[in-house]
Amino acid sequence: MTQRAEGKTLAILATDGFEEVELTSPKEAMENAGAKTVVVSLKSGEIQANQHREHGIKVKVDKTLDEVKAEDFDALLIPGGLFNPDALRVEQKALDFASAFFEQKKPVFAICHGPQVLISAGLVSGRQMTGFKAIQQDLKNAGALVSDEQVVVDEGLVTSRNPDDLPAFNRKIVEEICEGRHDGQRDSVAA
Amino acid sequence: MTQRAEGKTLAILATDGFEEVELTSPKEAMENAGAKTVVVSLKSGEIQANQHREHGIKVKVDKTLDEVKAEDFDALLIPGGLFNPDALRVEQKALDFASAFFEQKKPVFAICHGPQVLISAGLVSGRQMTGFKAIQQDLKNAGALVSDEQVVVDEGLVTSRNPDDLPAFNRKIVEEICEGRHDGQRDSVAA
Repeated sequence: MTQRAEGKTLAILATDGFEEVELTSPKEAMENAGAKTVVVSLKSGEIQANQHREHGIKVKVDKTLDEVKAEDFDALLIPGGLFNPDALRVEQKALDFASAFFEQKKPVFAICHGPQVLISAGLVSGRQMTGFKAIQQDLKNAGALVSDEQVVVDEGLVTSRNPDDLPAFNRKIVEEICEGRHDGQRDSVAA
Repeated sequence: MTQRAEGKTLAILATDGFEEVELTSPKEAMENAGAKTVVVSLKSGEIQANQHREHGIKVKVDKTLDEVKAEDFDALLIPGGLFNPDALRVEQKALDFASAFFEQKKPVFAICHGPQVLISAGLVSGRQMTGFKAIQQDLKNAGALVSDEQVVVDEGLVTSRNPDDLPAFNRKIVEEICEGRHDGQRDSVAA
């Protein structure tokens, strides 16, 4: 299967301390499928990866959150790493940016600790999800329906647990950005 | 006020990636008050601090979790740092160790991301608490009654938000270890 994503644009929301391979690997998979990727961050310049507790590469920020809106993109990726979502989840404009993708029924992809941002944005209740083992309890407490699987897909929301899951994660995110909007993508389950 | 804690022993539960000052500062405060402190970790040897995203000092592990039980101590401290509680909260023996202090009505102190361990152990429902800004939503979702204050004391459970809160945190933890057991210390609120 060689799905093509020409004409699609992925926003990658990240800041310092993102887990290196959780940004670079999905970015490469998307670009190999023909999609454009845009690194969006809290401020301009560069952001630095972690490789677990060590520092990793620096990545150029293409746009700040002040310069973009969800309308500019077809889907959103939130990599993990411990410091990255920890910093993003306390920034209201990051939460608003993520929320807008759900409102516009656009695919959202989060891996490892990335789903913490979705918890803080109030976007996980009633959703089928996974995440890094340490945060699965937090996802459950926020109302998510958590499975300990390598990748969980729920109406445009694609989540994985850790870097080992990247091959499965990358296949699904390319599929989902090709499918486009999902009417079932929503910020909470109807009562 | 110069409360003395001679004869009291504090367990400090930590692993690699603890926020340096969140271990060293309370440890010093306790020892200055006359208490003994014991660094307890997942494995023997040394554990290395973080200073936010940078590496910090190495600290000798006094005892592994396999070598101790809550009965040996008067109180428990869980420092923050991102990697430290993230690693501890997925280890059942760390959760069991923390739970035993609650069962024995002994004071428990957690700062910054430290309370994440208490979330995973199911110990926060109905408790007055605080924690690092990024995890306050997780605490609320777990049923804690969260205040954004420098230190919150609830029947032996003492929590603070970040290193700036250490002076207030240290005063309270010395007070609480001196007071000893708290009948109100419990793992959840009666319905």
